[in-house]
Amino acid sequence: MPKNKLSREELAERVAVAPFHQWLGLELTNMDEKGIELTVPWREEFVVNVELGYTHGGVLATLIDVAADYAIAAKLGRPVPTIDMRVDYHRPAFQGNLIVKAQALKLGGNFCTGEAQVYDEKGKLLASGRGVYLSVPLG
Amino acid sequence: MPKNKLSREELAERVAVAPFHQWLGLELTNMDEKGIELTVPWREEFVVNVELGYTHGGVLATLIDVAADYAIAAKLGRPVPTIDMRVDYHRPAFQGNLIVKAQALKLGGNFCTGEAQVYDEKGKLLASGRGVYLSVPLG
Amino acid sequence: MPKNKLSREELAERVAVAPFHQWLGLELTNMDEKGIELTVPWREEFVVNVELGYTHGGVLATLIDVAADYAIAAKLGRPVPTIDMRVDYHRPAFQGNLIVKAQALKLGGNFCTGEAQVYDEKGKLLASGRGVYLSVPLG
Amino acid sequence: MPKNKLSREELAERVAVAPFHQWLGLELTNMDEKGIELTVPWREEFVVNVELGYTHGGVLATLIDVAADYAIAAKLGRPVPTIDMRVDYHRPAFQGNLIVKAQALKLGGNFCTGEAQVYDEKGKLLASGRGVYLSVPLG
Repeated sequence: MPKNKLSREELAERVAVAPFHQWLGLELTNMDEKGIELTVPWREEFVVNVELGYTHGGVLATLIDVAADYAIAAKLGRPVPTIDMRVDYHRPAFQGNLIVKAQALKLGGNFCTGEAQVYDEKGKLLASGRGVYLSVPLG
Repeated sequence: MPKNKLSREELAERVAVAPFHQWLGLELTNMDEKGIELTVPWREEFVVNVELGYTHGGVLATLIDVAADYAIAAKLGRPVPTIDMRVDYHRPAFQGNLIVKAQALKLGGNFCTGEAQVYDEKGKLLASGRGVYLSVPLG
Repeated sequence: MPKNKLSREELAERVAVAPFHQWLGLELTNMDEKGIELTVPWREEFVVNVELGYTHGGVLATLIDVAADYAIAAKLGRPVPTIDMRVDYHRPAFQGNLIVKAQALKLGGNFCTGEAQVYDEKGKLLASGRGVYLSVPLG
Repeated sequence: MPKNKLSREELAERVAVAPFHQWLGLELTNMDEKGIELTVPWREEFVVNVELGYTHGGVLATLIDVAADYAIAAKLGRPVPTIDMRVDYHRPAFQGNLIVKAQALKLGGNFCTGEAQVYDEKGKLLASGRGVYLSVPLG
């Protein structure tokens, strides 16, 4: 795996640009040569099940996609469009910060694969998955 | 495929309960024995790319998951927890209403499969995918 | 969706070249502008569960991948390398011919999506899934 | 993650029963509390591309499914039916032994998730993926 092309400051800035990332409250809280970590504060609007109070799977899917993308962006120097993504749900995500870790799995000249895991504050694995991203140089 | 167990009014009510669905502005705009249709008004917070103005893939992933789930809910009489889901991205989703169609693919006693498609207002296919849902009777 | 670039004879010939396709006994039994159909005779070596006699999921996964690829090949004029693929298993596949149908879902200049369904001789849906294929011109 | 319920001998025996596993030449070559390793000798019938001589993606998909399943079987004491599976292809698999490693990711009372990686003899990652398996007690 090649070295990172973006510094932590540069990546944090890139993550912060998108309105949807701002709404989610995404913050880059760690980054090294192995991958990145995002922290996401809980929002009431995340909830799908009012009685039990757990977060919508779509929020977790979004976090998997974003984190895997930016783990690749760290290596390539730019975020990349998602070709497809998949999420496995392991446990309900109750109220509390979410910690998302992601790693580039394979960097190719045409497409790249990244994977990500969503944890609760106690380190329990809530969801995990992968995205495939287009890295063909744009015309 | 069995007959629907929920009426359109009942399903619309169920969809409207979740805070995340309310934030997304989901509305059940059609339903028959073959499947359901949700309409989603555009929101500025959906945007991932400010220059080009297109919607975050996580929003589209959410819509695939929700719609496939409620297509199954129509048949089973209740929404079901997502085991896993996958999305293919076909075209960028620019500003405008999103129309989401979904169908139950297979109803089983242990798990169910549903699929969904996200279209723009002109009927262009933007994203499509599938979810697998747990239908084991709970405790 | 554009018109087919390969005739049924040309596609049948292409399918027959690969040693693994020969081992599987794949035969192109139908093709029109909407998609293709392959028929696969049962083989004893397909079995995973000796007591119940049903076919290995890996065989069904292979059929999904091949069929979706050749549905795209019919449109593009050549088979394309698989980027990733996913299969949902709906019912066990007992002894008997397998019929596989596939359709190109989206043709793009960088990547294409296809989907496929595996049926038993009575038309029961056994498995279905999708593949994403690289269509960037090589070299 | 709980301790293994099957010994290496017991698991090796289980793997060897299925006719399709025999045809593939699957051999359990390692196993510890973290996961399992299968080794697969090359067969001419695996080939999809005669000119370049690389193995069919369906063979790699099969290996992902089998290995993830048996990594879970080691923990649960029995193999489990596949609900769905996904494979990412990273590099072509040329002639030579294939080494497949797999780990149980999450064991649940209703369903389990496992993941697997296929390597060539030099340790290059060729494909990787996941399966979701039904663990509801039968009958």
